[in-house]
Amino acid sequence: MRFETLITGGRVVTGGAVVPADIAITDGRIAALGHGLTGAQEINATGLIITPGGVDPHCHIEQMSGMGLMNADTFETATRSAAMGGTTSTISFAAQAKGQRLRDAMADYAARAARGAAIDHAFHILISDPDVADFADDLRALIAAGHRSIKLFTTYNIGLSDAAILKVLRIAGPAGALTCIHAENDAIIADARAQLLAEGRTRPIDHAASRPRAAEIEAVARMCHLAEIARAPVMIFHVSTAEAVAEIANARARGAPIWAETCPHYLFQTEDVLDRPGMEGAKWMCSPPQRTRTDQTALWAGIAAGHIQIVSSDHAPYRFDATGKFANGFDAPFPAIANGMPGLEPRLPLMFDAMVNRGHLGLASFARLNCEAPASLYGLRGKGRIAPGYDADLVLWDPAQSRTYGANDLHDNVGYNPWEGTTVTGFPTAVFLRGQAVMRDGEYLGQPGAGRWIDRPAIGTTPRDLTGQAQ
Amino acid sequence: MRFETLITGGRVVTGGAVVPADIAITDGRIAALGHGLTGAQEINATGLIITPGGVDPHCHIEQMSGMGLMNADTFETATRSAAMGGTTSTISFAAQAKGQRLRDAMADYAARAARGAAIDHAFHILISDPDVADFADDLRALIAAGHRSIKLFTTYNIGLSDAAILKVLRIAGPAGALTCIHAENDAIIADARAQLLAEGRTRPIDHAASRPRAAEIEAVARMCHLAEIARAPVMIFHVSTAEAVAEIANARARGAPIWAETCPHYLFQTEDVLDRPGMEGAKWMCSPPQRTRTDQTALWAGIAAGHIQIVSSDHAPYRFDATGKFANGFDAPFPAIANGMPGLEPRLPLMFDAMVNRGHLGLASFARLNCEAPASLYGLRGKGRIAPGYDADLVLWDPAQSRTYGANDLHDNVGYNPWEGTTVTGFPTAVFLRGQAVMRDGEYLGQPGAGRWIDRPAIGTTPRDLTGQAQ
Amino acid sequence: MRFETLITGGRVVTGGAVVPADIAITDGRIAALGHGLTGAQEINATGLIITPGGVDPHCHIEQMSGMGLMNADTFETATRSAAMGGTTSTISFAAQAKGQRLRDAMADYAARAARGAAIDHAFHILISDPDVADFADDLRALIAAGHRSIKLFTTYNIGLSDAAILKVLRIAGPAGALTCIHAENDAIIADARAQLLAEGRTRPIDHAASRPRAAEIEAVARMCHLAEIARAPVMIFHVSTAEAVAEIANARARGAPIWAETCPHYLFQTEDVLDRPGMEGAKWMCSPPQRTRTDQTALWAGIAAGHIQIVSSDHAPYRFDATGKFANGFDAPFPAIANGMPGLEPRLPLMFDAMVNRGHLGLASFARLNCEAPASLYGLRGKGRIAPGYDADLVLWDPAQSRTYGANDLHDNVGYNPWEGTTVTGFPTAVFLRGQAVMRDGEYLGQPGAGRWIDRPAIGTTPRDLTGQAQ
Amino acid sequence: MRFETLITGGRVVTGGAVVPADIAITDGRIAALGHGLTGAQEINATGLIITPGGVDPHCHIEQMSGMGLMNADTFETATRSAAMGGTTSTISFAAQAKGQRLRDAMADYAARAARGAAIDHAFHILISDPDVADFADDLRALIAAGHRSIKLFTTYNIGLSDAAILKVLRIAGPAGALTCIHAENDAIIADARAQLLAEGRTRPIDHAASRPRAAEIEAVARMCHLAEIARAPVMIFHVSTAEAVAEIANARARGAPIWAETCPHYLFQTEDVLDRPGMEGAKWMCSPPQRTRTDQTALWAGIAAGHIQIVSSDHAPYRFDATGKFANGFDAPFPAIANGMPGLEPRLPLMFDAMVNRGHLGLASFARLNCEAPASLYGLRGKGRIAPGYDADLVLWDPAQSRTYGANDLHDNVGYNPWEGTTVTGFPTAVFLRGQAVMRDGEYLGQPGAGRWIDRPAIGTTPRDLTGQAQ
Repeated sequence: MRFETLITGGRVVTGGAVVPADIAITDGRIAALGHGLTGAQEINATGLIITPGGVDPHCHIEQMSGMGLMNADTFETATRSAAMGGTTSTISFAAQAKGQRLRDAMADYAARAARGAAIDHAFHILISDPDVADFADDLRALIAAGHRSIKLFTTYNIGLSDAAILKVLRIAGPAGALTCIHAENDAIIADARAQLLAEGRTRPIDHAASRPRAAEIEAVARMCHLAEIARAPVMIFHVSTAEAVAEIANARARGAPIWAETCPHYLFQTEDVLDRPGMEGAKWMCSPPQRTRTDQTALWAGIAAGHIQIVSSDHAPYRFDATGKFANGFDAPFPAIANGMPGLEPRLPLMFDAMVNRGHLGLASFARLNCEAPASLYGLRGKGRIAPGYDADLVLWDPAQSRTYGANDLHDNVGYNPWEGTTVTGFPTAVFLRGQAVMRDGEYLGQPGAGRWIDRPAIGTTPRDLTGQAQ
Repeated sequence: MRFETLITGGRVVTGGAVVPADIAITDGRIAALGHGLTGAQEINATGLIITPGGVDPHCHIEQMSGMGLMNADTFETATRSAAMGGTTSTISFAAQAKGQRLRDAMADYAARAARGAAIDHAFHILISDPDVADFADDLRALIAAGHRSIKLFTTYNIGLSDAAILKVLRIAGPAGALTCIHAENDAIIADARAQLLAEGRTRPIDHAASRPRAAEIEAVARMCHLAEIARAPVMIFHVSTAEAVAEIANARARGAPIWAETCPHYLFQTEDVLDRPGMEGAKWMCSPPQRTRTDQTALWAGIAAGHIQIVSSDHAPYRFDATGKFANGFDAPFPAIANGMPGLEPRLPLMFDAMVNRGHLGLASFARLNCEAPASLYGLRGKGRIAPGYDADLVLWDPAQSRTYGANDLHDNVGYNPWEGTTVTGFPTAVFLRGQAVMRDGEYLGQPGAGRWIDRPAIGTTPRDLTGQAQ
Repeated sequence: MRFETLITGGRVVTGGAVVPADIAITDGRIAALGHGLTGAQEINATGLIITPGGVDPHCHIEQMSGMGLMNADTFETATRSAAMGGTTSTISFAAQAKGQRLRDAMADYAARAARGAAIDHAFHILISDPDVADFADDLRALIAAGHRSIKLFTTYNIGLSDAAILKVLRIAGPAGALTCIHAENDAIIADARAQLLAEGRTRPIDHAASRPRAAEIEAVARMCHLAEIARAPVMIFHVSTAEAVAEIANARARGAPIWAETCPHYLFQTEDVLDRPGMEGAKWMCSPPQRTRTDQTALWAGIAAGHIQIVSSDHAPYRFDATGKFANGFDAPFPAIANGMPGLEPRLPLMFDAMVNRGHLGLASFARLNCEAPASLYGLRGKGRIAPGYDADLVLWDPAQSRTYGANDLHDNVGYNPWEGTTVTGFPTAVFLRGQAVMRDGEYLGQPGAGRWIDRPAIGTTPRDLTGQAQ
Repeated sequence: MRFETLITGGRVVTGGAVVPADIAITDGRIAALGHGLTGAQEINATGLIITPGGVDPHCHIEQMSGMGLMNADTFETATRSAAMGGTTSTISFAAQAKGQRLRDAMADYAARAARGAAIDHAFHILISDPDVADFADDLRALIAAGHRSIKLFTTYNIGLSDAAILKVLRIAGPAGALTCIHAENDAIIADARAQLLAEGRTRPIDHAASRPRAAEIEAVARMCHLAEIARAPVMIFHVSTAEAVAEIANARARGAPIWAETCPHYLFQTEDVLDRPGMEGAKWMCSPPQRTRTDQTALWAGIAAGHIQIVSSDHAPYRFDATGKFANGFDAPFPAIANGMPGLEPRLPLMFDAMVNRGHLGLASFARLNCEAPASLYGLRGKGRIAPGYDADLVLWDPAQSRTYGANDLHDNVGYNPWEGTTVTGFPTAVFLRGQAVMRDGEYLGQPGAGRWIDRPAIGTTPRDLTGQAQ
């Protein structure tokens, strides 16, 4: 028989291996994989590497910040940028406002994504107010409807108490949802910030000292205990310190249901970026802040050793102007500067360059960290893998193509590229979403609204994954 | 086109996923995977689970023990037993005698395997004498010829000193070989044994106390340091204690190139088995000994967390008679009893029962631990995975079939089954080696000599896998 | 010259050594120590061991419980009991009520102690409401006036948030006060209690499960971080678990200004005592609860290694009747039973029996743990040591005298002895407070109101004690 | 009564406290301590601090080095230097030559000390050959005769195997001796040295890299295991790395009978000293080498936390000429340069300056680390403490006197002062040995041969000190 489309001659990366194979596509799905196949349409991928489409499970899109500022990106601009970088699935946040019912927040974000998203997507249920009416019922209903992940904070004005976190975990665990946590000790941060401001230290670089390492280390350890107590799976977001990696490794070694992610800006940048002249440092402000080279080594070791399973972008887009970073003035002290940096588009090229071109861990690990693991752990049906029955979300990489990032060459709406001057080798030449090209040779072919919500019948993280105890 | 053979309707486990797919086989290899394929011969696997053929990277076949006793199994009997349990590849030992050149030891074992082995195989270069002439040259030549793993001991009469181990690692690392180490502190064992014998404690159960936990913990920590110093990858064999798992986790977290395996008898048995009446305990004597339930929990947590990557059998076959266990008499004190237990055949069913039937970690992890990881880490080309281009080594499992092991129902030459009385659910109904059935419905179809030596152009473990540093 | 009083022939325990020496006393103080001295009055202590008077730095006297219940003991009865057991100094709590000014709380307690106390005493400033008017000024003023220790909770209805704790530490550290913390995670306890009550588990033994080990472990680790951040010395009260000892050891190894105490009921009892028939278990209810034998071993190792510096009683007296334990009814569920057990009087004999008679660590450590360390760390001027210029607070021990505790033979007002049936060897035959006997041969000679408040010009714990960094 | 001598008006440091007291001396011993005493001779110490005489438990005197080179110091010169710096007791080494009986080695060293030593002294039994005839009997006899400490190496040409170390510990533990171990992994050092020499790196600074941190860390961990297995107390000599401190802390926390010392050159120097121009670095060469500032912080934290109990000099004197450092030539590669640096004399002033003048831990800790703890742990009867019955070994310190060390102002026979240029504040103005001045106002008053051997009826370290288990 002939398949609709056949991508021939590529080296296919999936499931921990790299195999030369043709990929047959029918009805937007991978029908078969191998040799001896024929297709009505054939696409020649000789010399190219084919990975699953990227899955970015941590990005802020069309979301209001804690300072009451809307992100610079809509679903239309964010997913355009994602697709241009090889990402075909996102999980962004359905952020509950204080007092808002969870289902209303979800309906709102789902509608916006349905309108604007050019790629497939899901949502974390971002809980800021667990005391709202019908909270538990709404949460269980949303999870049962396939929204199988939750986002909590231990800090900011929406930080939850330990008691509230346990309340959520006691619902999430049995219902089969994964709870993602931004884990930094709020009191330690407030204390550090107060000390700094009292000393007149208000510059972007002071943002680094305002979030002491201990704030992360302490909160990560605490969340590990809460997850273990509740027997509910927890994903620690954006780990930045060596000691937090150690806390996670130890918790996992004793069977705590803990998973973790980090981000390119922790792997490739240090806090020096915050100390650039004038207000330049504000471009790289995010929380937790970038740390040291020792931490970078520990994060890579944590990835290699399996303590960290995912690399996400934590895309949090604010323009470097009065509508974004400087909504509170161009000389605002660091706590009043919008916090976050864009990253949806460069995530995969940065990681490909490091892992494939420069040899950190290799191709199979590249696909695992950036595609398979996020799809699997968050339960994104049909995503993250090149295998029969999976969506034909594919990225064709030219491993020899080099690019040096410029000042403003991303396709989001942020207006600056925090990776300006960085050269990456290995770049996507085509990106397919369910068999349709959304990028080819640098040309954007996506359609706002063409993206679909991804059902999640079950997550891939359960406590027994770590304890090995039968249930 | 039509493929030679098509296995249809099964649920295929590979690369971390379970996908419904047909498997097309041509010339003993997997040609394609998916739907819409046709075959000249079709095998119906509806309702069955299909995993890669098992890879057992730690088994003693036709090998002389430290006591000068030949194993009960030849390649013919060992590989028959392996195949009946679903294992299609083994790595056994090419054991250097003191004074023997490594290449002579390898030639000897390779010839015996070529004659008798019914399944595919490779060898660890077992070094007992690193001071023999031309040692370094021979070792490099054997590695370059595709014998990419080494076995060392820190104990027994062939235990190497730290200096000798570093000498080997300094060759093995740059040459691209993985060094496997039986890590127990010899002095601690000798001390404990002397104390026990002085107290008249000579029974099989005293074997447990003769190998204190600290002997393993200390030696594992030390080997982690040596591997790190030499930047050479090391596999810790048969980890048995919770503390050793922690040492490994910590070493990996700091970037040491360390991997680890455990065995079913540590996961499912405790030292109680050594205390059975009369000399019965001798059936389960092995080193390190079985430990406690707490250790079992820690080993499962270590597997779940990725600290332990492989489960092997450590098949070490001795008959329960004067030719084996009791070569030194039926009332021999424990140090004079042959040390080891059979395990090639029950390894996969025991692990399937635990991981699939009883739900410890699930199918994908089952295939990873027992097939993919050993093939990948040891570099067995074409093995361990169901993907285009790989050997068509396949096991068809009936997940509902139960079996209770009897006293002597294994197909090796040992004469007793240490798992007598254990019921497993999930059992192989057919086993294919390069597309040819070697077992079907319990009937052995293998041919001595049909097994092939497996080339290993490169291993899957390099220091950068853990450190993330480019080279 | 002749001294007023000379105690001759004893073996004197002080400063880490045991020396045969006569003790000369003048004006209630030790004038000299040695041989060749003469006294107007001579007391023969031949064959006896002389230790400093006991210092109990953690006891609840005339204090309202969290449940609104007054302790069974007044200063008169509590100090009588203390003196009968060899204790000549206490630090109890000046407990702030919600909304009350700290200075008013202190004045209230100081007045009660001045009236009733037969032995010398000081107070921890117990903070339940850091938001009251003039809080920081009052706190600094009290510290400057010599009240150099503070007590905080992380749990109960007076538990402080991390932010409030940091606020206190930022005052206490620079002002030179030691902050003592009852460290258990309140949310974990509330969660466990809710689970238990939902399952109908309401008995005294369920109290143990209602305070999971992780509640202590987590909170201790967190308090270590806060102390380190604020560079303010913190004493962890009543450590009960092996893991908490490890957290403390690690924090101290990285230079965190952390000290710790444990209590006899953790060293000598296990949670089994809570499971006695009927409501008997209520006699031993305290928080944290008694744990396991493994924890006991770890606590002793922690004492031996210097991780734990003090053993206190945590005397919390409630009668086993409707005025005390059962104020909420004789069949009250465990959360409604008054929480605490008496211990002022048996602390020293229990510790003497273990450390001297049974040989745990020996006489010098006995005096260090129970007398010198609490006096030194809390800065009790003139207390805890037998040296020239120190108060003549002395206990004469007959190391051969044995006693088996009966049902109601303590001299407090509690009505039961939780150590009933325990035999101790080594018992005080005389106790002196500033040179005056308050007990001789079992006869109480103390006078209510004779006790004095102990000035504390400075504490013995400063961050540099652990970091070694000059200031 | 009148005492022979009375030292009046000083602040006396002993047993963890600082007390104003007069010290009465009769027959070379402290008769009494306090006020109201009179003496035939009175010495005015007003304004001075009085500490016990220093105890240096780790110094090489009249000893042959591993390179076959005799130390620069005889007992006469070494003890002169010690006394000038306030040290009144030493423990040096009775070094067994290969094949020599232990008792012969001891007799030899004892005779030399009896002839030359101006201060009191004891010996560690240095074992280089445990296979010599009558080894066990000799060892037990020497211990019983009061030589209660042993020295072993894990490296150098006299390094013992784990088996030999266990053999010694099995004798030493029950016999009541403390085994001191120079713990560095010999194979790691040999490997590093070979790598360096192969790269032509032969300078003094390369000595640092030739003894990798891991060599110490690994060996310390291993020795902790052996001590724990044998239940025999072990003192880890000259700890230099943060990780080794952590290994020791963890071992102690689990009850292993481990103690540790460090030295001033680890506390105050870094490896930079080895990199001075020309061969200057050779002046500071010792093993393990100096490390980093981070390690210094960890060592101070380890002292503060009690993980490290002793500071010794590791005095190993070689002249900076052809008779010493350069016996193998002035351009010898680092492995051929004599290894060691002098330190007997400056140890106390350096530590006084740091701990008292600059405030690291204070006076009481100064006396504990440098006087009390070594006397107590090694069982030096009558030493290390200012208390009735103890030897009147005293140092009078002027806390305000400053001195800057010059190029050659020590009183040993080494010819250079490694602390040249260092200013210390606080200096001894008089030193008494058993009541007799051996130094006064910088004038040496000692007599060769006046020093006595110190009996050691029992050591102060037993396993129960750490485990708290009764025996």
